[in-house]
Amino acid sequence: MTSPHQRFQSFDDPSHSKGPERIAALRAAMREAGVDGFVVPRADEHQSEYVPPNAERLAWLTGFTGSAGTAVVLADAAALVVDGRYTLQAPEQVDTGVIAVVRLAETTAEAWIGAHLGAGLVLGYDPWLHTADGVARLERAVAKAGGSLRALDDNLVDAVWAGRPLAPSGPVVAHPPEVAGEGVSGKLARVRAELAGADALVISDPHNLAWAFNLRGRDVAHTPLALGYAILPREGRPALYLGSPDTDAVRASLDSVADLHGRAAFEAALDALARDVASASGRIRLDAATGAAALKRRIEAAGAVAETGPDPITAMKAVKNPAEIAGTRAAHHRDGIAVTRFLAWLDRRGEGVGEIEAVEALEAFRAEGGLLKEVSFPTISGSGPNGAIVHYRVSTATDRRARAGELFLVDSGAQYLDGTTDITRTVAVGPPSEEMRDRFTRVLKGHIAIARAVFPKGTTGAQLDSFARAALWEAGLDFDHGTGHGVGAFLSVHEGPQRIAKTGTVALVPGMILSNEPGYYRAGAYGIRIENLVLVEERTIEGGERPMLGFETLTLSPIDRRLILPALLGDADAAWLDAYHARVRDTLSPELDGETRNWLVGRTRPITDGRV
Amino acid sequence: MTSPHQRFQSFDDPSHSKGPERIAALRAAMREAGVDGFVVPRADEHQSEYVPPNAERLAWLTGFTGSAGTAVVLADAAALVVDGRYTLQAPEQVDTGVIAVVRLAETTAEAWIGAHLGAGLVLGYDPWLHTADGVARLERAVAKAGGSLRALDDNLVDAVWAGRPLAPSGPVVAHPPEVAGEGVSGKLARVRAELAGADALVISDPHNLAWAFNLRGRDVAHTPLALGYAILPREGRPALYLGSPDTDAVRASLDSVADLHGRAAFEAALDALARDVASASGRIRLDAATGAAALKRRIEAAGAVAETGPDPITAMKAVKNPAEIAGTRAAHHRDGIAVTRFLAWLDRRGEGVGEIEAVEALEAFRAEGGLLKEVSFPTISGSGPNGAIVHYRVSTATDRRARAGELFLVDSGAQYLDGTTDITRTVAVGPPSEEMRDRFTRVLKGHIAIARAVFPKGTTGAQLDSFARAALWEAGLDFDHGTGHGVGAFLSVHEGPQRIAKTGTVALVPGMILSNEPGYYRAGAYGIRIENLVLVEERTIEGGERPMLGFETLTLSPIDRRLILPALLGDADAAWLDAYHARVRDTLSPELDGETRNWLVGRTRPITDGRV
Repeated sequence: MTSPHQRFQSFDDPSHSKGPERIAALRAAMREAGVDGFVVPRADEHQSEYVPPNAERLAWLTGFTGSAGTAVVLADAAALVVDGRYTLQAPEQVDTGVIAVVRLAETTAEAWIGAHLGAGLVLGYDPWLHTADGVARLERAVAKAGGSLRALDDNLVDAVWAGRPLAPSGPVVAHPPEVAGEGVSGKLARVRAELAGADALVISDPHNLAWAFNLRGRDVAHTPLALGYAILPREGRPALYLGSPDTDAVRASLDSVADLHGRAAFEAALDALARDVASASGRIRLDAATGAAALKRRIEAAGAVAETGPDPITAMKAVKNPAEIAGTRAAHHRDGIAVTRFLAWLDRRGEGVGEIEAVEALEAFRAEGGLLKEVSFPTISGSGPNGAIVHYRVSTATDRRARAGELFLVDSGAQYLDGTTDITRTVAVGPPSEEMRDRFTRVLKGHIAIARAVFPKGTTGAQLDSFARAALWEAGLDFDHGTGHGVGAFLSVHEGPQRIAKTGTVALVPGMILSNEPGYYRAGAYGIRIENLVLVEERTIEGGERPMLGFETLTLSPIDRRLILPALLGDADAAWLDAYHARVRDTLSPELDGETRNWLVGRTRPITDGRV
Repeated sequence: MTSPHQRFQSFDDPSHSKGPERIAALRAAMREAGVDGFVVPRADEHQSEYVPPNAERLAWLTGFTGSAGTAVVLADAAALVVDGRYTLQAPEQVDTGVIAVVRLAETTAEAWIGAHLGAGLVLGYDPWLHTADGVARLERAVAKAGGSLRALDDNLVDAVWAGRPLAPSGPVVAHPPEVAGEGVSGKLARVRAELAGADALVISDPHNLAWAFNLRGRDVAHTPLALGYAILPREGRPALYLGSPDTDAVRASLDSVADLHGRAAFEAALDALARDVASASGRIRLDAATGAAALKRRIEAAGAVAETGPDPITAMKAVKNPAEIAGTRAAHHRDGIAVTRFLAWLDRRGEGVGEIEAVEALEAFRAEGGLLKEVSFPTISGSGPNGAIVHYRVSTATDRRARAGELFLVDSGAQYLDGTTDITRTVAVGPPSEEMRDRFTRVLKGHIAIARAVFPKGTTGAQLDSFARAALWEAGLDFDHGTGHGVGAFLSVHEGPQRIAKTGTVALVPGMILSNEPGYYRAGAYGIRIENLVLVEERTIEGGERPMLGFETLTLSPIDRRLILPALLGDADAAWLDAYHARVRDTLSPELDGETRNWLVGRTRPITDGRV
C-alpha cells in the first residue's frame, strides 16, 4: 500500500472481436498456401501455460483471450472450441457471425474437423504448435473426413499478422547455487541415468530447462522462464539454445558444464545430432508433453528414431531438495505476513471494498519488502456471485463492491527468488448466512482431512482426493475441480506430475509440494475455497508397520473463524485448526505491526472457545 | 449339522509333485511337433476362474494346484511363474529339480521366455488358452529372444495326458423368468444396441452366456455355468453352442429367440459367419477379456475383421434388475440365518474348534433348508496364524484347533437360485488382546466408512477405496488387497467391472452389488476381515444439489462386539453399528431357535451401552 512497485496485473476489459477482416486475410493466405483449412491452437512451441505476446495468435485472430482454446478456419466455416470455463466469455469476445463458438464437452476440435472438412480437402497446421500426439489426433480427424493433413513451414497467421510482436528476449539470470541446492553437473548426471539407452534428450519444456541448468528468465508473465531448448547427449557436452541474450554471469555459471547458443542455432544442431544418432541406429528422447511435432519430424527426416515419452526432469523437478524446501518455507513466511496484513486491511475496509482495489492492495503488501519478483498468476478476486466463477479474472467491466452478507474470495500467489506461493482465503463481509457457514465448514473439513492425512508410501493423489469431498458429499454437494496441483520452487505455480485429483496417478514422494484447495460454489450467489500449500514428508508412527507419509502445511494465514460452525467441525478437526492458528500467530506476530497483531490474535482464538 | 447333503468342499492335502515323467513326456511331444518349447497357462478356453477338470493341465503336468500360474517348458529348462499368494505353496507341490518356481513380481512368464528361449527357437502355444492380448505379449517376448511363436492345433499336454477327463457336460437348466427379471429378447435387444455397427458378437464368457440367455449349468465348481459359446448377429437369430446336453425345458425356453447346438458345431458356424461378414467388409466383436486367440485367428483367416473390445453384456450384467435385487435380498436373509446359527455354534464350541470342522458345520447350516445349490467359493477358515494367509484354504495337512486368545476368520459364500452371497466374520476365541481389539476396530471403521459413504453419480470404486483404509493408515497399517469386488446374481462371486479398489475405474451404478471387506493381517499371528455385500442405490439428500448414491448393506449377521474398542469407534460409526445390529436382530430373530435368538440378542446389544 505504500511503496510504488512494478505492477504485475492489469484489469482491462478483455478486448472484443477484431471483426471479420483477420479471418478473411487468413483465408487468403490459406488459398495462397494451397490448403483448405488451418488450425490455430492457443499454444506456443513449448505448450506453455503462459505464452509470450508473439504466440498469442488465437487472441489476435479471434479476439478470444482465454487460456485454452482452438480455432479451425475453413474456406466457408470457422469454429472456436473452448472448454466450460469460457463458454460465456468466448461468444462475447468473438464475432459469432464469422466464427461459431463450440463447447469442448460436446464437440472437440477434432470432431468438428471430422464433421466439417470435406472429402479431398487439405488441412494445414503449424508443426511447432502441436505435440506428436496432437498431430496423431488431427490425422485421425482428417482421415475420418476423407481429407488430408499438411504441415506448413510457415504459420499462416504470422504471414498476415501486421505488427506481430518480436519473440521475447528477457534477461536470463543464474539461479543462485544456495537457492537451487544442487549443481548443474549433479542434476545432469541424474537425468542421464534415466535416459534408458537413448542417445540424447531434447529438453523442450522451459521449466525443465530452468531447473536442469539453474537459470531463470523473464520471457513470459508469472513464471520465471527463459524460452528455448537444450540438447543433452548421453555423453559429451550439453548445449542450450536460448532466445534471450545471455549475460556473462550466466555464461560463467554454465561454462564448465554446457555450451550456450542463440535460439536460431537450434534447428541445425538438432538436425546434426539426428544425423549422428541415425548413423549409429540410435534414439533421441522427446518429451511427449511439450515436444513439438516439428522436432519429431526433423529427427525422423534425418533417419533417427524419435522416442516420445516423459522427460525424466519432470519427475525430478517435482521433488524439492532441502535448499528448495527451506527457501519455500521462507517464502511462505514472508508471504504469510503480506497476506495476513491484507486480510486485516480487508476486514477494516469492510463493506464496499472493490475487487480491483483488493488485488492492488494485496500486491502492494507483497511488494513492500522489495523481494516480490512477480505474482505467480493473475489474482482471482471475487465478491458475491463473482466468487462462484472458479477461474474469475476481474476487469474494469466486472469489478464490483462487496456488500454486507456476502463472501469475498481471493486466490493469489507470489514469485520470490526462494519460492512460489499460492493461497486462497474466503472471508465474510458482514454477517454470513447459516448456509454459508455450513458450506464453509464442510469445505474446511475437507481441507483439514487432506492436511491431516497419513498414507503409505506409494499412495497417489487420486487415492486422497475423496477425503477433501466427503463432508460435502454427505450434504449432497461437491466441487468441479481437482483438490490440488503441484507447485514449483520459483517456477510454475502449476507443476506436474503430482496432483490431488482423480487424474493424480503418480505416487506422492517426500519433497513434493501441492496445493490443498477444496471449494464450494453456488452459482450466482457465492464461492468458497480454502487453499494452503502442503509439503509431502515422511511420518514415523509408533507401533506402525509401514513407511508412511503425510503433509506439512506451508502456508501461514488465518482461516475466517466467523464462517465456521464449531459443532459441525468435530474434535480432531477443531484441534487441527487451533494448532494451525496458534502456529500462524506465533510465527507471524513478531513481524507484524501492533494493529495487525491484535487483529490476528482475535482471529486465531481457539475455535473450541466458542463450542457448546 | 443335521441333514445329510451333497458336500461342495474337499480338504485333501494338495497333491505333491507328479515327478519328472510328465515333463519328459511333454518334451517328447514338443520334439514330435517340431517346437522347442510350450506354454501351459492355468486357463481354459474361456479364461474362467474355476476351470473344469479336463482343463487342469497345469496341475496335471506340475502338481501345482493354485488358481493362477503359467508353466513354460523348454528342452533343457522349465519354469512355473506364480504370484505372491503361491510362492510358498508352489515349491512344496512341484519337483523343483525339474521346474524352477519363479515369482511373478520379479519375472513374468514373458520375461522368463525372453531370457531363456534361445535365438532361432520356436515356442508353441495353444491358441484356445490365451486371449489375443496374451498372444501379443508372447509375441513380444519371443521376438526379444530372437525366436518365433507358433500356434498349435492340438494341445501338447492333452497329447500325453493319459486318462484326461472328458469335457464337462452337466445339465443346463432355464433360469426362471421371475428370478431373472428380464426376458431373453429384451436383453438381446439391449446388447444389440451396444454393438456400434459390428455385424455380430461372439459371446465367449460363460457368465455372459448364462445372463443373456437366462440359463444356468453345472460345468465348473462354485459358479453355475454352462460352458460354451453364442453367436449374436446384429440381425437374425442367435445361436448357442453348449457342451452340455440340453433339456427340452431349456430348448422350450429358448425356442422363440435362439437356436441351440452342440459345442462341436461352433467352429464351423464361426467360420461361416466370418466368411459372410468378410464379403460385406464387416466386423465381428470379440470379448477382449475372455475371447481366445483361436477365435480371432479363425475370423481373420476367413477375411473378416475381429474387433477386440469389451463384451457389452459385462457392464449390463453388473447392474441388477428389481427381481435380481429382491432375490439377492432373500438369499442374504436366508444366508444370514445360517451364518448366525453357525456363529452361535462356533461360540458354544469355543476353544479347540477345528478349521475343517467349522467349514463342515457352516456348510451344513446352509444346506439345511434344501435351497443351497453350491458354496460360491471354497471357504476360508483360518484360526490364529492361518487367518493371516489372505487366500488360505484349509487341508488335512494344515487343519488346526483354535486356542484361547486367538482369532478365527471365516470367509464363505453360498449359491442359491435367487442370489449369491459372500461374507467374512472374524471372531474372538477366548479373551482377545488389546492390539487385536485396536486392529479390529480400525478395520471396522473402514468397513463402516464404506457402508455409510454417500457420493455423486459418476464416482468410481477407486475414489472410495481409501475410505476403507484411513483408520489403519492413521496407525501406520494397511492391507494388501482391494476393498471390494463385484458379485453376480446366482453367478460368479467375483464379477466385474465394478470394484472398490485402486483399479476400480468404472462408475458405480445403482443396482451393482459389491463386497465391502477391509482387513488387517499380522503374519504368523492373526488375520482380521469384516465383509458384507452392499448394493449401490440412489440417495436423496435434503438440501443437496447433486444426484447422489450410497450403499444398502445386504448381508445380515452380527459383527463380534467383543473385539471392538468403543472409544476408538466414534459416535457416527457406533450409531451405524447399533442400527445394523438392530436390523440383523429384528430381521433374523423370528426364524431362529430360542438358543440362537438369545445369543443374538446379547451379541447385538448397542455398543454405546459399554461406552465411557
